[in-house]
Amino acid sequence: MDAFKKGWFSETGIHCSNKVNISLSADNILYHEKSAWQDILVFENKLFGKVLVLDNAIQCTEKDESAYQEMITFLPLNSHPNPKKVLVIGGGDGGVVREVVKHPSVETVVQCEIDEKVIEVSKEYLPFMAEGFKSSKLVQHIMDGAEFMKNHQKEFDVVITDSSDPTGPAASLFRKPYFEGIKQALRPGGILCSQAESFWYDLKLIHNMMNMTRELYPVVEYASVYIPSYPGGQIGFLLCSTDAGTNFRKPQHVLSSEEVSSLKLKYYTSEMHTAAFVLPGFVKKHLYGSY
Amino acid sequence: MDAFKKGWFSETGIHCSNKVNISLSADNILYHEKSAWQDILVFENKLFGKVLVLDNAIQCTEKDESAYQEMITFLPLNSHPNPKKVLVIGGGDGGVVREVVKHPSVETVVQCEIDEKVIEVSKEYLPFMAEGFKSSKLVQHIMDGAEFMKNHQKEFDVVITDSSDPTGPAASLFRKPYFEGIKQALRPGGILCSQAESFWYDLKLIHNMMNMTRELYPVVEYASVYIPSYPGGQIGFLLCSTDAGTNFRKPQHVLSSEEVSSLKLKYYTSEMHTAAFVLPGFVKKHLYGSY
Repeated sequence: MDAFKKGWFSETGIHCSNKVNISLSADNILYHEKSAWQDILVFENKLFGKVLVLDNAIQCTEKDESAYQEMITFLPLNSHPNPKKVLVIGGGDGGVVREVVKHPSVETVVQCEIDEKVIEVSKEYLPFMAEGFKSSKLVQHIMDGAEFMKNHQKEFDVVITDSSDPTGPAASLFRKPYFEGIKQALRPGGILCSQAESFWYDLKLIHNMMNMTRELYPVVEYASVYIPSYPGGQIGFLLCSTDAGTNFRKPQHVLSSEEVSSLKLKYYTSEMHTAAFVLPGFVKKHLYGSY
Repeated sequence: MDAFKKGWFSETGIHCSNKVNISLSADNILYHEKSAWQDILVFENKLFGKVLVLDNAIQCTEKDESAYQEMITFLPLNSHPNPKKVLVIGGGDGGVVREVVKHPSVETVVQCEIDEKVIEVSKEYLPFMAEGFKSSKLVQHIMDGAEFMKNHQKEFDVVITDSSDPTGPAASLFRKPYFEGIKQALRPGGILCSQAESFWYDLKLIHNMMNMTRELYPVVEYASVYIPSYPGGQIGFLLCSTDAGTNFRKPQHVLSSEEVSSLKLKYYTSEMHTAAFVLPGFVKKHLYGSY
């Protein structure tokens, strides 16, 4: 499919296999250039608002980005008793940083984004995402997160990987050496959360990621989120803890209705935290071995 | 969008608003004709298998139909202490009947489908859906379900509405007189479950349906299901009970792992039953008034 046929953007990412795709009308193209790392596109769609696309895969839209950003952030942060120092790898659009700095116990957020151009484009065209970049808690590095971790051992309470699909610049973020690197970068009791694709299309990949990380971490789970602009309307996260006592399904701090409001959360609640780990029968059976 | 451009089927249903749609490659078109009621299309897609389309909206695909059929059936049946007689309105493809007859306490399933052609097409091209039609528990009527209920008062423990979108032949199934009719058709303690669209695209419609039915039923809830072939990858169900003591979130019978297997359930588990009622913050706030 031509990604711009008659003013429509159609995904041609790894999920479509030329058999299925989601299309959004590109009502107004705001930016389209190749960086050193990838093809970057920003357009407006009247239903989804601003849309960021990297290498022909939708990364976020104004309508539903909160589902992804809030869950990839608050699932690990609220599973940790006292997260003070957080590393975000990827996430150049700024959405995850925007959420991490909301957490009251977090003192420092370090971000490693390999593609500076994504940050610039987000600041220019996606200010609702980039607002986290203004926080005094943020230390930003334009570099490969895996390289950064080699010199920052036992330093972080939580490491979040906000990556694109396992192809192009993000491919290495789905392999074992990367998760070994995170283990070294985590403090005792540390937790990681990584973008881990869709159970509808990537169940084998998820299964492999979980088996791989179970060799490194005593607690490994997959949590799911509804998100209409991603293939199949669903994506999930791999959560691993270095502490065998971690129960990801029970958040350490249950948010009151007032806290949900004051933190400006649209999707995440403590109930949604717990429910995200409940998976359809065929998914649970495949990933955990029983219903 | 032309629904058949270069061998692709693109939805042009009520959700796309000409701004978003899902497309499947129509690798092999098996049937395409207009019935007295609607346009009926069956094609094969290499990823989703057989696909049934009514009036340009995908109704079910082989890959993910179990998510919808199992949830619209077992959410109400397992919320009822002893469902013996069930009415299915719509559901001409047979998938819901296939699930209802699995339930051990169900003795009779009555189905009212207005479009006989859908049943014929399903028997011919979608045998995995139509298998429920063979059950001796089934009594089938080709007629309008609302008309049928006028002469069948206080007769059913559960009424399931498996409808297409609120346009065309299904439009009346989303209005108050229809839900009044169901109330009359239900026995004391009776429960209804109706297809109720997506919270991503139809939140106002869902809100209106809930407010409308709250005037008729003491317990009204919305439950959600992941399903990649529907717009936004999500659809939900309206559940109402005539018994104020009904707690939809706690199934009356918790299925063991063995029962999930022996009932050939792919998506539904007792955990998924409970989790389906946990909704994203913005959805809960809109539908229930608080987080």
